Amino acid sequence: MKERLNHLNALLELKGLDVAFITLPKLIYYFTGFYSDPHERFMALVCIKGEEPFLFVPVLDHEKAARVSNVSKIYSHKDEENPYEVLKSYLRSGITRIGIQEEHLNVKRYHALMEMTGAEQAVALEPGLVAIRAVKSAEEVAVMKRAIHCIEEVLRTTLPLIKPGVTELDIVAEMEYRMKRLGAEGPSFDTMVLAGEKSGLPHGVPDNSPIQEGELLLIDAGVFVDGYASDITRTFSVGDISAKHKEIYEAVLQANLSMIDAGRPGVTIGSLDTAARQVIASKGYGEYFITRAGHGLGLEIHEYPSIYGGNPDLLRTGMVYTAEPGIYMSGLGGVRIEDNVLVTENGVEVLTTFPKELTIIG
Amino acid sequence: MKERLNHLNALLELKGLDVAFITLPKLIYYFTGFYSDPHERFMALVCIKGEEPFLFVPVLDHEKAARVSNVSKIYSHKDEENPYEVLKSYLRSGITRIGIQEEHLNVKRYHALMEMTGAEQAVALEPGLVAIRAVKSAEEVAVMKRAIHCIEEVLRTTLPLIKPGVTELDIVAEMEYRMKRLGAEGPSFDTMVLAGEKSGLPHGVPDNSPIQEGELLLIDAGVFVDGYASDITRTFSVGDISAKHKEIYEAVLQANLSMIDAGRPGVTIGSLDTAARQVIASKGYGEYFITRAGHGLGLEIHEYPSIYGGNPDLLRTGMVYTAEPGIYMSGLGGVRIEDNVLVTENGVEVLTTFPKELTIIG
Repeated sequence: MKERLNHLNALLELKGLDVAFITLPKLIYYFTGFYSDPHERFMALVCIKGEEPFLFVPVLDHEKAARVSNVSKIYSHKDEENPYEVLKSYLRSGITRIGIQEEHLNVKRYHALMEMTGAEQAVALEPGLVAIRAVKSAEEVAVMKRAIHCIEEVLRTTLPLIKPGVTELDIVAEMEYRMKRLGAEGPSFDTMVLAGEKSGLPHGVPDNSPIQEGELLLIDAGVFVDGYASDITRTFSVGDISAKHKEIYEAVLQANLSMIDAGRPGVTIGSLDTAARQVIASKGYGEYFITRAGHGLGLEIHEYPSIYGGNPDLLRTGMVYTAEPGIYMSGLGGVRIEDNVLVTENGVEVLTTFPKELTIIG
Repeated sequence: MKERLNHLNALLELKGLDVAFITLPKLIYYFTGFYSDPHERFMALVCIKGEEPFLFVPVLDHEKAARVSNVSKIYSHKDEENPYEVLKSYLRSGITRIGIQEEHLNVKRYHALMEMTGAEQAVALEPGLVAIRAVKSAEEVAVMKRAIHCIEEVLRTTLPLIKPGVTELDIVAEMEYRMKRLGAEGPSFDTMVLAGEKSGLPHGVPDNSPIQEGELLLIDAGVFVDGYASDITRTFSVGDISAKHKEIYEAVLQANLSMIDAGRPGVTIGSLDTAARQVIASKGYGEYFITRAGHGLGLEIHEYPSIYGGNPDLLRTGMVYTAEPGIYMSGLGGVRIEDNVLVTENGVEVLTTFPKELTIIG
């Protein structure tokens, strides 16, 4: 973690910044080991050029920050104080360029930081932060494997409970209970259990409709373990399904395998999407693959890189991403098969181990 | 909901805006009935002066938005498109003033919207939106009562399971399971179960430490039901606790009652905090009441108003807020007693019904 702070200081130098404000809680955790959701309160890791970084937190987090973080200087503000005025007293004068997380910092805070520091310019830290975060260390991959193992165990132990008549929300409740019991912080996103026609909605919401024989059942779920996310999708056959359903399943499975096969250091991110899309298009379902093929995974459930056709960025060793092609047909249902993939020196390692052949449940 | 959109159009007129962008997903839900978490994708309710508002969503949400929202015009963008360029084609030219949610919109999107519209000025919609949202309708209060009933039922049915040896995370898992089974969308924030010394951390995180006899056990939990939050805290005695613990409990309880008693239309928000703080200070624990006394509650777990000393805003009929004084003593533990309170025409109605006298469990 000391090394991560060194990267951050190097970024300050590189960008010619006087001070950088890290405001995304997960990123504060990444650099300091301290995590808190401050809700609407202001919280930041503050890196001043040439000085030791400090944490600036709501007072109710002061003790915890001091206890768990690797940063020795902790300053705090009370609810009745103006946090920017308090923060100003810990900064030096003559600040001209500040670094911000422009994809996280809101406009109100941006204006407050600009006014408080008197800076002339705010520079986006994202390109640098992305480069730092995108490549996972062996330690990070080990944690992600635990997050993956947890959600796979949840899926394995929940499947026997799924029968016609059980509702989508019943299954969600059983799964999220198992997540907690297995030590996860919680779901890494809203657990998605979608039956029948609803499996055809990439962002459907589970409800009290009972599972029925002859339907597809799509389960997309993940957990956070020690801050890191897993994210897996499997689509099941409840009893026997139609030939059309099976054809769709097979197309998606081939696309998933083709996308995984295309991964290795140095290829473009876009080529992964293309590998999946070509398979689905060749089976005649191109128009029903209406999402990107995947996304980076780590401290956040969606992080860099976004895997869409034409993304010219290059895949690098240590990146972790989801491979999740799908076919979504209104009225008929949908299939998505999603794995978590690590880029190795020669190719990729598929971190998810749950079987992918069409499985009949219920 | 039609009425809410009318309020929004009136806000446009009042602020002299050409177009307003509502970007907070919960607020899009408030105005349209459509909810989605678009993660890093861009989504907005777009209100153009003198025109019918439209939803601008990621393509994978298009069908759902068309199905559930009360807005008839839905436009969407694909992952491989620049959303701002697509959005531009639906706007007219000659835009000079835009309205934004400056407490939600991030800096990157702000710059993109400014450039895309060619606007000279961005105006914060918050003061107006706050005024619209702060006063809850009878329908909203009815939903919030269901959210409160749900979390109270969860608490009631979980208490019998709590015995020395059970861990904090065991209790969290049991509670969150019951939330889902009782029809909640999920916890409205990370369920907090803190035993012993950890109850003295206002933002502590549950872990695998077993509950022990003679400790305080603080449970702060809530659920979302149909989009609305509940938020209740009770502190229990595991077996017999010390006289000091009991004294703290009594001080917090009196502060909670005094704060509730102080609520009625027309008083300042700050006076609620003062009412609670005076009681705790008079018992000699003033320095250990290190948080504000409460916050507004509704679609978000923390919303307007923030209840801190000196807040000059006035309480209005229909506002819903938490009353949650606490005493937090390092090494000894803490007590918080939190109710959800509705401002009525003559005073307040306490919506939470869970008993507040010190209860021995285990």
